[in-house]
Amino acid sequence: MSFRAPVQDIAFNIQHLSGWSDLTALPAYADFDLDDVQAILEEFGKFCSEEIAPLNKPGDEAGSHYANGKVTLPDGFDTAYAKCVEMGWPSLPHPAEFGGQGLPRVVGAAATEILNAANMSFALCQLLTDGAVEALLTAGSEQQKATYLEKLVSGEWTGTMNLTEPQAGSDLALLRTQAKPNDDGSYAISGTKIFITYGEHDMAENTIHLVLARLPDAPAGVKGISLFLVPKFMVGSDGAIGARNGVRCVSVEHKLGIKASPTAVLEFNEATGYLIGEAHAGLQYMFTMMNAARFAVGVQGIAISERAYQQALGYAQDRVQSRPVDGSAREAVPIIQHPDVRRLLMRMKSLTEGTRAMACQAAAWQDLGHHQGDKRASALSEFLTPLVKGYSTEMAVDVASCGVQIHGGMGFIEETGAAQHYRDARILPIYEGTTAIQANDLVGRKTLRDGGETALALATQIAETEAALNAGSGEARAVAARLTAARQTFETAVTYLTETAPKDPNAAYGAGVPFLMLAGNLVAGWQLARALLAAEANRDQDPHFMAQKIATARFYADHILPETQTQLTRITDGADSLAMAVFDA
Amino acid sequence: MSFRAPVQDIAFNIQHLSGWSDLTALPAYADFDLDDVQAILEEFGKFCSEEIAPLNKPGDEAGSHYANGKVTLPDGFDTAYAKCVEMGWPSLPHPAEFGGQGLPRVVGAAATEILNAANMSFALCQLLTDGAVEALLTAGSEQQKATYLEKLVSGEWTGTMNLTEPQAGSDLALLRTQAKPNDDGSYAISGTKIFITYGEHDMAENTIHLVLARLPDAPAGVKGISLFLVPKFMVGSDGAIGARNGVRCVSVEHKLGIKASPTAVLEFNEATGYLIGEAHAGLQYMFTMMNAARFAVGVQGIAISERAYQQALGYAQDRVQSRPVDGSAREAVPIIQHPDVRRLLMRMKSLTEGTRAMACQAAAWQDLGHHQGDKRASALSEFLTPLVKGYSTEMAVDVASCGVQIHGGMGFIEETGAAQHYRDARILPIYEGTTAIQANDLVGRKTLRDGGETALALATQIAETEAALNAGSGEARAVAARLTAARQTFETAVTYLTETAPKDPNAAYGAGVPFLMLAGNLVAGWQLARALLAAEANRDQDPHFMAQKIATARFYADHILPETQTQLTRITDGADSLAMAVFDA
Repeated sequence: MSFRAPVQDIAFNIQHLSGWSDLTALPAYADFDLDDVQAILEEFGKFCSEEIAPLNKPGDEAGSHYANGKVTLPDGFDTAYAKCVEMGWPSLPHPAEFGGQGLPRVVGAAATEILNAANMSFALCQLLTDGAVEALLTAGSEQQKATYLEKLVSGEWTGTMNLTEPQAGSDLALLRTQAKPNDDGSYAISGTKIFITYGEHDMAENTIHLVLARLPDAPAGVKGISLFLVPKFMVGSDGAIGARNGVRCVSVEHKLGIKASPTAVLEFNEATGYLIGEAHAGLQYMFTMMNAARFAVGVQGIAISERAYQQALGYAQDRVQSRPVDGSAREAVPIIQHPDVRRLLMRMKSLTEGTRAMACQAAAWQDLGHHQGDKRASALSEFLTPLVKGYSTEMAVDVASCGVQIHGGMGFIEETGAAQHYRDARILPIYEGTTAIQANDLVGRKTLRDGGETALALATQIAETEAALNAGSGEARAVAARLTAARQTFETAVTYLTETAPKDPNAAYGAGVPFLMLAGNLVAGWQLARALLAAEANRDQDPHFMAQKIATARFYADHILPETQTQLTRITDGADSLAMAVFDA
Repeated sequence: MSFRAPVQDIAFNIQHLSGWSDLTALPAYADFDLDDVQAILEEFGKFCSEEIAPLNKPGDEAGSHYANGKVTLPDGFDTAYAKCVEMGWPSLPHPAEFGGQGLPRVVGAAATEILNAANMSFALCQLLTDGAVEALLTAGSEQQKATYLEKLVSGEWTGTMNLTEPQAGSDLALLRTQAKPNDDGSYAISGTKIFITYGEHDMAENTIHLVLARLPDAPAGVKGISLFLVPKFMVGSDGAIGARNGVRCVSVEHKLGIKASPTAVLEFNEATGYLIGEAHAGLQYMFTMMNAARFAVGVQGIAISERAYQQALGYAQDRVQSRPVDGSAREAVPIIQHPDVRRLLMRMKSLTEGTRAMACQAAAWQDLGHHQGDKRASALSEFLTPLVKGYSTEMAVDVASCGVQIHGGMGFIEETGAAQHYRDARILPIYEGTTAIQANDLVGRKTLRDGGETALALATQIAETEAALNAGSGEARAVAARLTAARQTFETAVTYLTETAPKDPNAAYGAGVPFLMLAGNLVAGWQLARALLAAEANRDQDPHFMAQKIATARFYADHILPETQTQLTRITDGADSLAMAVFDA
């Protein structure tokens, strides 16, 4: 049940897949060197293993509880959070200007993964605070930044995102929360928000709610939504904490998983709020924040996959049951020797490492886009956001389910912990936009809007890797053949979508999730193929580890990449039967 | 949240897919007519909807609890069980000789599905009792049958299966429970059994435990296991209930799902037991019983799928969110109009109906094999058992997960009930033999042992359906093309397995689960293709319903059957990468 941060695999990706020398050529990252980064991650990993991971199972058992407007978190959460803040961990990814440590995103993503693998319910608080920091950096006034950012960056205060209302989930056009101007330039915010992660708790002295609401003169629909900052406690001009604001928690949800993370219903009753950025531009700011949050949720998927894999591997090595099918022993052996257990473990491992490598590539492109103004890198990173979010989280559910299966009957008993991962993982393809919402984004904004240009640029890069593989070892060539076949399905799908969408949008968007799964599968497999090349070139560094990278890439290529063929059939040949669908009234 | 038994689809299968006229040509079933059968199922469905289904969610919330050797079931379970017994429902599938109603298995399977869809935790008690009846019919002495069968058939007493011990799960060779001969011909049974479904409860006046144990002179391994009958309360020669026997419940498990069903740890302390059948032949009897139980667990998968589908369909029709992508409305519409929601619903519906149709075919072959001594039908029904168990349950987890996804954030909140199906379903690919154990059975006993003969006979029957489809409508021909491609992957896989197993058993068994998933997918798709032909031929009977059957078959063919291609790649090309697998120590 103990957790060990996968720093070696993470460092391998940063060194060999992220284009690290390009990143450290950026002035913002000139001070970072690989050994330092690895040392930071090792230290953070140790902290998470020792202080945060042990709270995961007790936190699930205890859950968060509501009474009289207050939320009680599981024992130990407040102390652990205080330690995090004291040690400066929350500030890792944020700008130095506001007290952060300004780590590259490829490193920040790794830290997010490690914290979430240790304890996803605990880590969610940080994830939402990171989103609030992102929003204020994007659209906050100088005064807002000066008042709130340092406290959020340090983690002394925490943040929330308030989008959903009972009638407005995926569809924010239906949002009703009102913002009425006060005489002093602030606004009175009134309405009900649901599904507010860490919407109420006492781990920090203040909570900064970011709230979508409508001004009185707002146009209908999504173009009439503004973003407001609503502190839980008012903050004086000297930064001192003042009176309680008009926002109250009225309940927390009873959920399938992430039970320690309080999911609050918040009532805003003429709470004082401050407009962030321009009126009616809230959705645009929220999208900036959401892109970061979506990427982070994808990383949570990788985290849960890693945790479930470690647990299943440990069980499979310990549990003795049945003789081997090849007759190599006359006694029962550890179940890791049985072919189907190995198959399940390799599925878990290759999906975990594949999605991790994909996220590393996406983060590197975010870094280049953000700090170098590299438009192609920006476009590629934006193309990858719905893949990191959609594919990594759908696969996390799959991986966690494989983990339960490896445990057999014990997997269904809550005491082993395998079931918790399966329950926790299930939120990931839902929050911050369901997989279908990610697919709409991928098809509409990321593929159709530029006529497939970014998608095909990605395919060109993949083809370059194929050429390198084809000039390599037998393993490399075997992987190349699968990668080529998968990349061709992607190109065919892009062509299909660009041709079909104008005349039959239902067909194009009905193919959205299969397209997302195809593309995510391909990009993760591509990154593992790049990892194979790097592992072969650096075999001497650590032969056992490099052999694992090669085996994992090969397994992914033979067992996972072929799923792209089925997805392509669904995309190109699936619309007729979807159009025929008949349901009972 | 209300449940409606899917009697129309069940009756369609019995009428058009089961070979009903062949079944009623059997003397045992000569008295049954289709209208009567449908009337029985309608009445049972009404009873289950009204009396059993409403206990499902409260039962999950309350769970079963242990204290001082006793188990408390959720409120209402005892009353509902008593009503079941009073109305004679438990006796439906059992022989008239012992007070049963002797319904054909195709009808019994339908009743099992309906009860489990209403409330799987409740239905498990019946499922285990059915297993005990099966075992006694197979191997019980005349005196044992006379003493126990009528009470078990009526449901006045319930039954359990005691196989698993802490060190012996999938591997019964490791079983340690001891049986020492007493002077009176009975045995003193001592040991610990775990995962005993309904191992302790007070709904019935007695519980008959069937227990695997070793005699003192037993050979090691599975050939030294005998089957014993251990009543909770001793039964006098007059049938009267006597003293408590030496078996005690010491705890119940805290589980992911089926929380109302008590999963007991039983301590046998020199409990009085009676040998069933021959010494050391226990595993063989248990296999008879397990085959019935495995089929029943597959049916539970269909049941959970149906329940999850009904719930998701209702939600999708009610929940209003977002404008349609094709611009056909300017306002938000019920989400069932969005393409990806339709895709998910059709996936759920087609998998549910496909696995149901497969189980109907399997049950019909069981009937022919059992009552007519038709060896080919027996072999085919035995080939289908691991498919019904393995494929229907893996797909039930998938379907329940789709149901959560359709609910969005509400799916993660326990109050909607979608999450309960996802939790409950997760046991199905595990108990009564994991999917890998089913795959070992499919590969070893069902495919290799006869050199692929039964498998290829099945393929021949599928090819006959393809010929009929190819002579039919455009829809039929579209389905035929997919079915042919899928059937060919199956034939290739069978050839691969028969050629590979002798020289590389790890490769053959490592391909076992992909082969099971391929075969289950194919057979379910084949049955839906037969359903399409029947629906086209009987369109006038109920045009709306028949249009649904046609659309469902077409969707399954275009969206699900192509998964066989990926599975084939895993089977024929997956062994090298599996052999390369390297794991951390």
